[in-house]
Amino acid sequence: MQEQRVNQKSKSGLEGVFAAALTPMDEKLDPDHGAFVSHCRRLLDSGCHGLSIFGTTGEGNSLSFGEKVSAMEALVEGDIPGEKLLPGTGSCSLTDAVRLSRAALEIGAAGVLVLPPFYYKNADDDGLFRFFAELIDRVDDERLKIYLYHIPWMAGVGFSLPLVGRLIEAYPEIVVGTKDSSGDWERTERTCREFPGFTVFAGSERFLLDTLRAGGAGCISAMVNVNAPLARRVYEAYEAGEDAEAEALQEDLNEMRTATEGFPAIPALKALMCETTKEEGWNHIRPPLRSLEEDQQQKLLSRLDLSKIS
Amino acid sequence: MQEQRVNQKSKSGLEGVFAAALTPMDEKLDPDHGAFVSHCRRLLDSGCHGLSIFGTTGEGNSLSFGEKVSAMEALVEGDIPGEKLLPGTGSCSLTDAVRLSRAALEIGAAGVLVLPPFYYKNADDDGLFRFFAELIDRVDDERLKIYLYHIPWMAGVGFSLPLVGRLIEAYPEIVVGTKDSSGDWERTERTCREFPGFTVFAGSERFLLDTLRAGGAGCISAMVNVNAPLARRVYEAYEAGEDAEAEALQEDLNEMRTATEGFPAIPALKALMCETTKEEGWNHIRPPLRSLEEDQQQKLLSRLDLSKIS
Repeated sequence: MQEQRVNQKSKSGLEGVFAAALTPMDEKLDPDHGAFVSHCRRLLDSGCHGLSIFGTTGEGNSLSFGEKVSAMEALVEGDIPGEKLLPGTGSCSLTDAVRLSRAALEIGAAGVLVLPPFYYKNADDDGLFRFFAELIDRVDDERLKIYLYHIPWMAGVGFSLPLVGRLIEAYPEIVVGTKDSSGDWERTERTCREFPGFTVFAGSERFLLDTLRAGGAGCISAMVNVNAPLARRVYEAYEAGEDAEAEALQEDLNEMRTATEGFPAIPALKALMCETTKEEGWNHIRPPLRSLEEDQQQKLLSRLDLSKIS
Repeated sequence: MQEQRVNQKSKSGLEGVFAAALTPMDEKLDPDHGAFVSHCRRLLDSGCHGLSIFGTTGEGNSLSFGEKVSAMEALVEGDIPGEKLLPGTGSCSLTDAVRLSRAALEIGAAGVLVLPPFYYKNADDDGLFRFFAELIDRVDDERLKIYLYHIPWMAGVGFSLPLVGRLIEAYPEIVVGTKDSSGDWERTERTCREFPGFTVFAGSERFLLDTLRAGGAGCISAMVNVNAPLARRVYEAYEAGEDAEAEALQEDLNEMRTATEGFPAIPALKALMCETTKEEGWNHIRPPLRSLEEDQQQKLLSRLDLSKIS
């Protein structure tokens, strides 16, 4: 197991605790660059090894190409190191996925997290393979490191393990990892086992310790927006070989996640950010998502022990 | 029933047989403007009352914003009248849906066909309502005529009838119609019945005659790319009160559709265009879609009696 982890480190270099960073928005529902820089800085300072931006939690699909490029540039101008960033660059449109991936390379991103072209529910593995082959050929940049973003319950399209294997075999230096947000631990564990050297992030911090133990790289998670220090302590305890401590901390992480279940994830996290930062702007969210109603917000807060976060 | 049809005509003005136009692509898989103009001209000349472009069949979600704007402009420059066009302008991103709808108005489009923000499978009616309310407020143009594009088996998100009702009530001059591609005739019929004056297009030519009889406006269909003359004859026979003739022609339409079942729709239609135009370029298609294999293509052609098309 330890050996696999060494392989991973040598392969893509990414590992640890990543927040699927929220995107703060202003009153007009445009990305609030200042608040975004502050949030990313806070996340890195409070324990995140890196940040995935423009994923599902970051409302990436609610933003236009130009909005994503401007926000990435604002982060780098705000001294968020590009190599800490893993931007979501997937699109149903091949040409958009290409130019967004290029833009991510321009800001020095560590890699790109790529959804399958999710409108096409009837796409088969051959068609999806061809999409990624075209993407790689067209980006045509040896710095490109792709992480396959598997979230079938949201995207409606996912990556079968045979497809993952085909992509790794065809592009071993480029298709280097995945975020598995299936919520299906058996699949995540199998991905770690079947593809040694492939960088596997669980899509939930609930599987952080299990993923590390299975030879995976860590987690990229929405909840890490609010509990990065705790997630980092799980990681550090695991690294130090403090098994009991790691398990106890993982229990705390799980408890917090359980408390938020039943609430829509992104509005709930934005509500928690409102509470912890006292910045009202955090409740801005693009439709079709909606911020929590006042009573839902109170119910959520009453369930959580925010003192455990840090 | 006839009364409802009169209402519809006075409401949005659109009715009849619309092709969900295919988008021809060149070798680099870029939209081929010249071939697109020719195809649209041919469709209008062969019986289409209008054309929906950039829908599912038109691979709209495979194209970037800029590619769609350029292709629309090319059509108008190629003397395809804007008022014959119903471009798909939906996007998961509110800002993209706004600017694409504005671009459609700029070329004088008759209306816009709008998908719900389809990434967000967990969006509720309130959230979807808010998305459309924001879209309408932001486009802020009295020329805007929205057709709700209901295709839940592909989009993963659809319009409930209560949501349709809320939108019509809030924006009676703007939310004027729908394309119902659910394939669920009962729903299409209910939509015609519950919302008199609302322009209902069936998403399949299989329901063309039924839709006209139920007080709907006609159909917007993929198959009409290859059988517009026949579909138009169904419409004309219905309008002339020639019931038996309309039914016989509708049977021919249905037979053709049945023959294509089991083949992936867009690749199959592009293969048929190859055959009827003898232009090889028609087989170009953006991944994750794939053109038909040679044997599939032969099988498809052997099943169809292309002489019935005209």
